[in-house]
Amino acid sequence: MFLPPFEIHILGTSSAIPAFDRYPTSQFIQVNGSYILVDCGEGTQMQLRKYHLPFARIDVILISHLHGDHIFGLPGLLTSLSLLQRQKELIIIAPPALSEILNTIFKHSEAKINYPIQFIFTNQKVEKIFENEKFSIYTIPLKHRVPTTGFVIQEKEQDRKIIKEKIKEYNIPIHQFNKLKKGFDAEDENGNIIKNEIVTTPPPIPRKYVYFSDTAPLKNLPEITKNANILYHETTFKKEHQNLAELTLHSTTIDAANTAIQMNAQKLIIGHYSSRYEKLDDLLTETKSIFENTELATEGKKFSL
Amino acid sequence: MFLPPFEIHILGTSSAIPAFDRYPTSQFIQVNGSYILVDCGEGTQMQLRKYHLPFARIDVILISHLHGDHIFGLPGLLTSLSLLQRQKELIIIAPPALSEILNTIFKHSEAKINYPIQFIFTNQKVEKIFENEKFSIYTIPLKHRVPTTGFVIQEKEQDRKIIKEKIKEYNIPIHQFNKLKKGFDAEDENGNIIKNEIVTTPPPIPRKYVYFSDTAPLKNLPEITKNANILYHETTFKKEHQNLAELTLHSTTIDAANTAIQMNAQKLIIGHYSSRYEKLDDLLTETKSIFENTELATEGKKFSL
Repeated sequence: MFLPPFEIHILGTSSAIPAFDRYPTSQFIQVNGSYILVDCGEGTQMQLRKYHLPFARIDVILISHLHGDHIFGLPGLLTSLSLLQRQKELIIIAPPALSEILNTIFKHSEAKINYPIQFIFTNQKVEKIFENEKFSIYTIPLKHRVPTTGFVIQEKEQDRKIIKEKIKEYNIPIHQFNKLKKGFDAEDENGNIIKNEIVTTPPPIPRKYVYFSDTAPLKNLPEITKNANILYHETTFKKEHQNLAELTLHSTTIDAANTAIQMNAQKLIIGHYSSRYEKLDDLLTETKSIFENTELATEGKKFSL
Repeated sequence: MFLPPFEIHILGTSSAIPAFDRYPTSQFIQVNGSYILVDCGEGTQMQLRKYHLPFARIDVILISHLHGDHIFGLPGLLTSLSLLQRQKELIIIAPPALSEILNTIFKHSEAKINYPIQFIFTNQKVEKIFENEKFSIYTIPLKHRVPTTGFVIQEKEQDRKIIKEKIKEYNIPIHQFNKLKKGFDAEDENGNIIKNEIVTTPPPIPRKYVYFSDTAPLKNLPEITKNANILYHETTFKKEHQNLAELTLHSTTIDAANTAIQMNAQKLIIGHYSSRYEKLDDLLTETKSIFENTELATEGKKFSL
C-alpha cells in the first residue's frame, strides 16, 4: 500500500550544553509535502543546510518551551528565511513569551521579517492546536521547570479506496465516487443502493508521531498519545543519575522506556543527552532492556513512520 | 626576541546568511594569556569547541553591533559558561540595547547566569574603552545601518630590558632594576648615576590589531588605527557589486585594500563574505591587486601578530 512520506529528520540531540558534535534539540518533519520544525536550538539553520533539507518550505514551527537549547536558533533561522525572500506565512506554535523575546531582538537589530508570522500560543491543556488538510497537531502539557508542551502530530485520515473491479460490476457512476471515498453508500443510475463496504477498502490507520522533550515522566498519559507509530522521548540521564533527573525534571532511560510501554508505542527514539555522556551505548542498552524497539537519535538520522 | 602570544583565531566568516559551511562572524583572540571574543554569531560556542579553544577563560567579549549575525550565538555561549560553573566576572563591551535583549531572553527562559557580567557600553566615539595590564581596547565608530564600532586591540608596552653584561660592569644594585625597566636612570652603591639608555634595550613596539566589521569605507581614519600589525576588514562584496556595498553600507575588496594602505597596516585579513559567493578566490585576487599582503579569513585559521 502506498503511504505518503511521514519522516522525522534529527538535527540535534544534546541537552543544555552542546558537546561531542551534538547540537541542541531540533527536528525537521515532513508529512506528505508539508514541513514542520520542532524546536530550534542554536545552529539549527546550519544543520538544515548540512542535511540538504528544504527549510525554505517550513509551514509550521513548534516550540516546546523557552529554554535556550530549544529556541536560540530561532532568531537566526527567521532572519535567514526573510533574507532568502520568503513570502509565505509562517505559523509558530509556542509559549506566549516567545513573541516578546523575538520582538525585542528584532527591534534592536533593526531586522525586518518580510513575511507574515502567525503566532498560536500554547497553554497547558491537551488540545488540538492546529490542523490542515494533511495533519493535526495536539499539545500535551509536560512536567518541566518552565511551561512545556509535548506534541502529537497525526496525519489526517485518507479517503476510502474504491475497488477497481467493482466499478464495472456495480455500474458505479463517476459522480458517486466522492461519496464512496468519504464512506457513504452510493446509487447506480437505476437508483439501486451500492453498499460502501462492498465496493471500497478502508484507508490505512492514520500515522502518529509523539514528541516529549523535556519532561519528568507523566503519571497520566492522555488518550491521544496512545498507539503512536513513533514516540520520541528525552533521555537526558542514565538510570544511575535518576536523582539528577528528578531534581531537574528530566527523564532517565527507564522513564522513557516505561512511557513507551504505557503509550503502546510501536517504536521509541531517545535523545536530549546530557553532556556528561560522551558515548551513548549505555543509554541505548538500558532503554532496550525494557523497551526493545528503541533507537538512538543522532544528528542526520532519518526515521520514517 | 621573545614575544608573548598575540593570536587571532577565525571562527566565522559569513555575512548575514550562513552558507557553504561558513559560520557568522566571530573571532577568538589571545593576548599573552588574556582571552577576548570579538562578535558572537550563531554557532560560536560550537566553533570554539571544534577548534579546542579555551573558551571558559574568555575575559572580555566585544560586540561591534546588534545585527543578528554578530550576536545570535551570545545567549547560548553565556548560558553554557554558567552551566560549566564559571565564577569569574565577564566583561561585555557592546551597544547599550544588548543588555535589554539578553535580559528579555534570560527572564523568559528562567536561565540563571551564575557569574557576574559587567557591561561597558560603546558609544560612537574614538576612545579607550578598556584596559588591563596586558592590553588596551579602543572603539572606532564605523559607518553601518545601525550603530557599529570597530575595535583596536593594542598590547601594553613591555618593560625595558637590562643588558645582562652591564649589571656587573656598572655594579647595578638589584633594588634599582625596577627603575631601569621602567625607563628611569639608576644609581650604584656609591651614588653614581647609571644612564638608562646605556644599560637597557627598549621593548618591542607594542603590537596592534584592528577589527573593522561591518562598515562602508571611512573617510577619516583615527590615528590610533594606524600602523597595525594586522587589519581585519570586512569584504562583503566583490568590486562588481559595489552598488550593493553602497546600498547596504558594506565594503568591497577594493575598499578594504585602500583602507589597509591608508592605515599603513602590515597585513590585511578579509572576511564577512556574502552568501552569493561560493568560491572566495576572486575576492582574494581583487584585494591583493591593490594590497599584496592580504589573506582570506577561513574557519579555523590562526593568525599571529
